[in-house]
Amino acid sequence: MIIDLNCDMGEGFGPWPMGDDEAMLDIVSSANIACGFHAGDPSIMFRTAEIAKRKGVAIGAHPGFNDLHGFGRRAIRGDSPAEIERMVAYQIGAMQAVASLAGHKVTYVKAHGALNNMANEDEDLALAIARAVKGVDASLVNVCMPGLLMEKASEKVGVRVAREFFADRTYEDNGTLTSRRKPGSVLHDAEEAAERVLRAVQDKAVTSTSGKRIPLAFDTICVHGDEPSAVAMARTIRAKLEENGVVIKPFAAFLA
Amino acid sequence: MIIDLNCDMGEGFGPWPMGDDEAMLDIVSSANIACGFHAGDPSIMFRTAEIAKRKGVAIGAHPGFNDLHGFGRRAIRGDSPAEIERMVAYQIGAMQAVASLAGHKVTYVKAHGALNNMANEDEDLALAIARAVKGVDASLVNVCMPGLLMEKASEKVGVRVAREFFADRTYEDNGTLTSRRKPGSVLHDAEEAAERVLRAVQDKAVTSTSGKRIPLAFDTICVHGDEPSAVAMARTIRAKLEENGVVIKPFAAFLA
Amino acid sequence: MIIDLNCDMGEGFGPWPMGDDEAMLDIVSSANIACGFHAGDPSIMFRTAEIAKRKGVAIGAHPGFNDLHGFGRRAIRGDSPAEIERMVAYQIGAMQAVASLAGHKVTYVKAHGALNNMANEDEDLALAIARAVKGVDASLVNVCMPGLLMEKASEKVGVRVAREFFADRTYEDNGTLTSRRKPGSVLHDAEEAAERVLRAVQDKAVTSTSGKRIPLAFDTICVHGDEPSAVAMARTIRAKLEENGVVIKPFAAFLA
Amino acid sequence: MIIDLNCDMGEGFGPWPMGDDEAMLDIVSSANIACGFHAGDPSIMFRTAEIAKRKGVAIGAHPGFNDLHGFGRRAIRGDSPAEIERMVAYQIGAMQAVASLAGHKVTYVKAHGALNNMANEDEDLALAIARAVKGVDASLVNVCMPGLLMEKASEKVGVRVAREFFADRTYEDNGTLTSRRKPGSVLHDAEEAAERVLRAVQDKAVTSTSGKRIPLAFDTICVHGDEPSAVAMARTIRAKLEENGVVIKPFAAFLA
Repeated sequence: MIIDLNCDMGEGFGPWPMGDDEAMLDIVSSANIACGFHAGDPSIMFRTAEIAKRKGVAIGAHPGFNDLHGFGRRAIRGDSPAEIERMVAYQIGAMQAVASLAGHKVTYVKAHGALNNMANEDEDLALAIARAVKGVDASLVNVCMPGLLMEKASEKVGVRVAREFFADRTYEDNGTLTSRRKPGSVLHDAEEAAERVLRAVQDKAVTSTSGKRIPLAFDTICVHGDEPSAVAMARTIRAKLEENGVVIKPFAAFLA
Repeated sequence: MIIDLNCDMGEGFGPWPMGDDEAMLDIVSSANIACGFHAGDPSIMFRTAEIAKRKGVAIGAHPGFNDLHGFGRRAIRGDSPAEIERMVAYQIGAMQAVASLAGHKVTYVKAHGALNNMANEDEDLALAIARAVKGVDASLVNVCMPGLLMEKASEKVGVRVAREFFADRTYEDNGTLTSRRKPGSVLHDAEEAAERVLRAVQDKAVTSTSGKRIPLAFDTICVHGDEPSAVAMARTIRAKLEENGVVIKPFAAFLA
Repeated sequence: MIIDLNCDMGEGFGPWPMGDDEAMLDIVSSANIACGFHAGDPSIMFRTAEIAKRKGVAIGAHPGFNDLHGFGRRAIRGDSPAEIERMVAYQIGAMQAVASLAGHKVTYVKAHGALNNMANEDEDLALAIARAVKGVDASLVNVCMPGLLMEKASEKVGVRVAREFFADRTYEDNGTLTSRRKPGSVLHDAEEAAERVLRAVQDKAVTSTSGKRIPLAFDTICVHGDEPSAVAMARTIRAKLEENGVVIKPFAAFLA
Repeated sequence: MIIDLNCDMGEGFGPWPMGDDEAMLDIVSSANIACGFHAGDPSIMFRTAEIAKRKGVAIGAHPGFNDLHGFGRRAIRGDSPAEIERMVAYQIGAMQAVASLAGHKVTYVKAHGALNNMANEDEDLALAIARAVKGVDASLVNVCMPGLLMEKASEKVGVRVAREFFADRTYEDNGTLTSRRKPGSVLHDAEEAAERVLRAVQDKAVTSTSGKRIPLAFDTICVHGDEPSAVAMARTIRAKLEENGVVIKPFAAFLA
């Protein structure tokens, strides 16, 4: 068995750091690098790409809304799909160029925060993002939640997808994540999360909050990097997977 | 005889337009497109690239300081050359990606405003910009003023250059532009500027403010786009050149 | 009969102008000055306040979302009411201070664009804005649409209100504006708008899009400044009112 | 003997914290609060003002260049003194308004970073800042380095000054700080800094890097808050002063 571990990274800005990217890049196999719109800047993007290159970690562009203050988590309504398409392309291209300087190469895209959430609720937006990915580089993979609009739009546009499982979030019956506002929707216990991840990898299924077992095939597991305990949880998850014979690799190595 | 005409474009932002790009793109052969840092945004970049494509106009990335409020004209001191290198690469990549969506291709780079001025006074900065250009795409041409530091740095790094003449600015004996603050340093009369451009093209030389004739070989003529009379002056210059048998083409067509 | 005319102003940013404020300040009696978040900057705020002072025009702070690119017209969801309260207070204080330099005084507040629209749909937001107004200066008047949430919140918090009529927009039966997206919702004919404004002033009522006559008492009429024909329409409206004996004055002169 | 201790605070932005303001506000008597241009945002400004109020700490506006990415430490050249005046006034007013919401009151101003440095090298800039302070509120005190241009400009304009000593920086013979780039120019040892501060308070003089004893009367001591060891050093300095009978109070309590 083989799986990818991805994590959001490069989320500092100017004088403000965030997360322990250096440590996290020893654990994950794919780094979603913020592109300067909701976090990150050219120098942080460069450093993250450079360390990732050195450690054999794949890198993806992690485009978000142009909303530093809200960290890309605020829903911003009013842009047309065409505007979103160009904004996403802009960020992917910026990331590609900075990665070039670091001797690395962007192999995938994963939409960030509110942009990602909104795309899974609005097909026109999902199609716009998929077109941006394909328009910039047709070989790029789009990381999506299985069964939701972004995955469908990617298929319609002809963009390859990697399907993603969230290590520390609970699921609803329809395959969406439970809202962060509901108590218990975010797992904080590393061991519990690791057990759940292992079972999901082995069974290709997850138990929803209603107790239903829902099928969920995926290629990559998202671990989070912006909380203090993030590194410890990611390490526990990786160890648990490896102890059980699961190999951790960038999804490029095994994606169909 | 053959020459390129270039103009800064795409210098609006969000709800604020600037210049008459549509008209200017009928006159020039190369469009320097602002990349969102000192002006421009993904949608304006896209539209400018799209019209340029339709009209057979070459496009270049026009990176500047991240200074919307000062329009990239304020000297900002404190970034290391490495930071500048990544910031320039970021903007070039962003422009390339948005150009891809418009079916066009970035073939050159021209640093904007204070960034350009500072690079011609600081070799480390000039080298950083040249490395950024080469690092993103080794086939890109860097537009430089002949004889100044940016041209030398480009040669040192191994980046092809296109040398530029300014249609509406007077020159000092050392080949630099007269400061805008000095009276008479900016030509406002279209006919006068056109005559001067024609003579410069024919003689490969320009008369400095001290009256000295200085040799000046160049591949492209910069006309300005941000003043109301800009289109009229550019049109007059183009007409004057064509009446005298000079062919206007993107420099890719003839650059050594 | 006496009424106020207000207009959004100071909506340029850095090198980008917007509207003909100088001309508009000869027509209106109140200037809503953008505070640097959705448009405007300290120098533009100063110049607008200075001209208003010279021409005897009252000035108000016109706070909006921190969204230059979207001109404050994009709905941004995710801030708590407390965050909105502080953001609005920030902008009012900034405007007061810059007005001081210009020898003028801020006498009112009017929320801009999406922030205003959202406040009329969310009481917590409306209360937050009202608290900000009162918290900064209890003598400030809040400009509101009659009958909607912002007016009610202002009354609850104890902030004086000036009620506003839109000169170039059609109304629904419930007193809200017809969405801009509906054809005919924005009047472009100056004479038609002027007639409608005069009748509204005289009758204290307006005819809704369904043909119903709805009562609408108001203290100030909003004319728009960001379209090329804006000045002409505002001039026509003012002339029509004055020809019919209506006096134009800042609402401070007559507000109950 | 009585002295003030001041510290830069509220230097986070959106999701990014900086420094341990809560701890520092137990040590200092004056908090210089960033105003959203080089750091800070309305909510951080509010929280800092609120805690300061609760702990009896005076607050000042800490205006800087509009340069989040460079944290206000980059010299930005190109604005006229008039533009700087309005930009500084804007930030002071914003801080006053947010402080009002927190039930606190801004009693002083201290220019931040590159803006402060540049003002001490350019009288026109120093005068612009002094005019901004006075124009917004003539009772505000301007915190300045003794003997430099900002102090002189404040006196010329008629703004009261509080003179400042830097706890962790070495001095040149002319009373300026040694450049941060020179080795040894920043003290890292808390005990050493505390001893030096105590002697400076007692002797009203400091030993320059050349070994000269230079007279230096001051009202407030600046301790830094943006490094991990900042709180410990500030605590050591305060303890040392108190052990030696020096009382720590906001300068309003004793300024002539």
